[in-house]
Amino acid sequence: MYKGLIDRYRKFLPVADDAEIITLNEGNTPLIPVPELAKAAGIDAKIYVKYEGLNPTGSFKDRGMTMAVTKAKEEGMKVVMCASTGNTSASAAAYAARAGMKSVVLIPDGNIALGKLAQSMIYGAKVVAVDGNFDDCLKYVRDLCQRHPIALVNSINPYRLEGQKTAAFEIVDDLEDAPDYLIIPVGNAGNISAYFMGFAQYFEAGISTKIPKLWGMQAAGAAPIVENRVFEKPETVATAIRIGNPASWEKAVAARDKSNGRIEKVTDQEILEAYKLIARTAGVFCEPASAATVAGLIKYGRDIEPGSTVVLVLTGNGLKDPDNAIKSAPEIFHVKNDIRAIEEVVL
Amino acid sequence: MYKGLIDRYRKFLPVADDAEIITLNEGNTPLIPVPELAKAAGIDAKIYVKYEGLNPTGSFKDRGMTMAVTKAKEEGMKVVMCASTGNTSASAAAYAARAGMKSVVLIPDGNIALGKLAQSMIYGAKVVAVDGNFDDCLKYVRDLCQRHPIALVNSINPYRLEGQKTAAFEIVDDLEDAPDYLIIPVGNAGNISAYFMGFAQYFEAGISTKIPKLWGMQAAGAAPIVENRVFEKPETVATAIRIGNPASWEKAVAARDKSNGRIEKVTDQEILEAYKLIARTAGVFCEPASAATVAGLIKYGRDIEPGSTVVLVLTGNGLKDPDNAIKSAPEIFHVKNDIRAIEEVVL
Repeated sequence: MYKGLIDRYRKFLPVADDAEIITLNEGNTPLIPVPELAKAAGIDAKIYVKYEGLNPTGSFKDRGMTMAVTKAKEEGMKVVMCASTGNTSASAAAYAARAGMKSVVLIPDGNIALGKLAQSMIYGAKVVAVDGNFDDCLKYVRDLCQRHPIALVNSINPYRLEGQKTAAFEIVDDLEDAPDYLIIPVGNAGNISAYFMGFAQYFEAGISTKIPKLWGMQAAGAAPIVENRVFEKPETVATAIRIGNPASWEKAVAARDKSNGRIEKVTDQEILEAYKLIARTAGVFCEPASAATVAGLIKYGRDIEPGSTVVLVLTGNGLKDPDNAIKSAPEIFHVKNDIRAIEEVVL
Repeated sequence: MYKGLIDRYRKFLPVADDAEIITLNEGNTPLIPVPELAKAAGIDAKIYVKYEGLNPTGSFKDRGMTMAVTKAKEEGMKVVMCASTGNTSASAAAYAARAGMKSVVLIPDGNIALGKLAQSMIYGAKVVAVDGNFDDCLKYVRDLCQRHPIALVNSINPYRLEGQKTAAFEIVDDLEDAPDYLIIPVGNAGNISAYFMGFAQYFEAGISTKIPKLWGMQAAGAAPIVENRVFEKPETVATAIRIGNPASWEKAVAARDKSNGRIEKVTDQEILEAYKLIARTAGVFCEPASAATVAGLIKYGRDIEPGSTVVLVLTGNGLKDPDNAIKSAPEIFHVKNDIRAIEEVVL
């Protein structure tokens, strides 16, 4: 019986032998072959998607959160806290609920999309809207976590990357070796760093024969690493990677260089096309940020060596962002209550 | 490498040896222990939830759809069709996309919640709104599927239950025997019938030592089996089980009686309380219909024999129904940009 990623990969993770594991059976996500994407990109390659949207709260963040909250519990914390309006806060709230701990989410007040927060709130998070900006929120989170027994679970929490690296282990275990390429969205840049760490550990342990070339994809309106400059006002439809000054910038550059990889950008239009393409040709519904990998494959795939194995990381579930799905949906056909009229539309 | 439920349970499924399997790696969903629910119900039992919301399109329907669409492909169909506004249409559209087939969804016109349809549409379904009621739609679907090479994938398709029964196999495989009780939502009543079929097959094959007591839960406003009468206008917040005249009525009654089970009803208020309870105490976010099982445990759990193992089936992902989550969410706290004000709210 599968009991979550800490149980499965314990010997590669910094968890005490007697720790109480806080888990929702995250990980163990499907690696789905999508030959349609090779056709769409016009290349000869075996292509898979790692569908991280099937984690318990709908994103890869659960991998890091099982580690972060397990450690927080071990350290006797009663509350977990983060500044986030997206996948991190949902995951933090769920794992805190699981652990019997409280969770607090700090967000900038004004212009709050309630839909984005509904998930954290249903898990019981206390959402606090501060009359300030995101940097203010993060500053307060750091301050409060330093002075009180509150666990900070934003990405500066080092245990998060430890948990996230297990996705690389799963890919190698499924394919019985590392792929030749891994394409991954890059926002705050923690995840590409975590995958590199995972692939490197498996390679050093002799479990795989190579480390894949890591190809990171940024949105053109939020491409600080590609353009080597901070984006003061990052803008992209791919909200999960709308980051102007990534926390793991240096680590991501190292992962890119050590793996012989690259970090590139794709436009919002390319992202939205890819978002529809992967749903309509492969039956996989992901967040716009995840579709940046599909867009990257279409745009840069010609550089992939023929015969390669390529894995695209789809970081989040499309159900998290129904508004974009509705905007991308085709028209509904309205017809009379009459078989001939219906037949004409259907056939 | 996990390749979907047909690959895993092929010897129990009516699939030709040379069939092209249409799969999104559905199934293999987590069985999560939730001791908190035993406490909440005040009983001594080992309680698990089978979290079917982590199937590829977010509901258990994917188990039946991999079978139905695999058979449709085998039979040379080019189009799949259903009358549905919910989980069935989303699943049908995804598997049709995967198979390179078209999908058509017929719905009654007027009062269409676009959110419910966004998922089918992003997978590329042609949505046809008919100026008639649901029965008209189903009649047209049957008619068109009889006269054209179109596969009908509504629940009258017999392959759907074959696929759905594999969830029972997974539970037995995980627990190394059948549980003592299984609690499951009952709407169209196909799923309780499928679970009975699965548990019975495993029992007959000598893989398990018993068949669990099946406890079906209906919403009080849509409780035809409990009250033994058709509900002309079924009403409940649990839309996935808002059915007044279930297609598998007889089968469900047989499953109940042969398993020494029962079918009961829970009110919308009990469902919504349970919906929040399972999210806030266990970190699991499900559809309201799924929460009917949690409500049933709370309401009828005193009848469970001490020391039993109990599995609750959570049929769909809460992300499918963000409106209910928002309605159930607590207030947001608005505070000044000042550490003392924030500290006061947080602590």
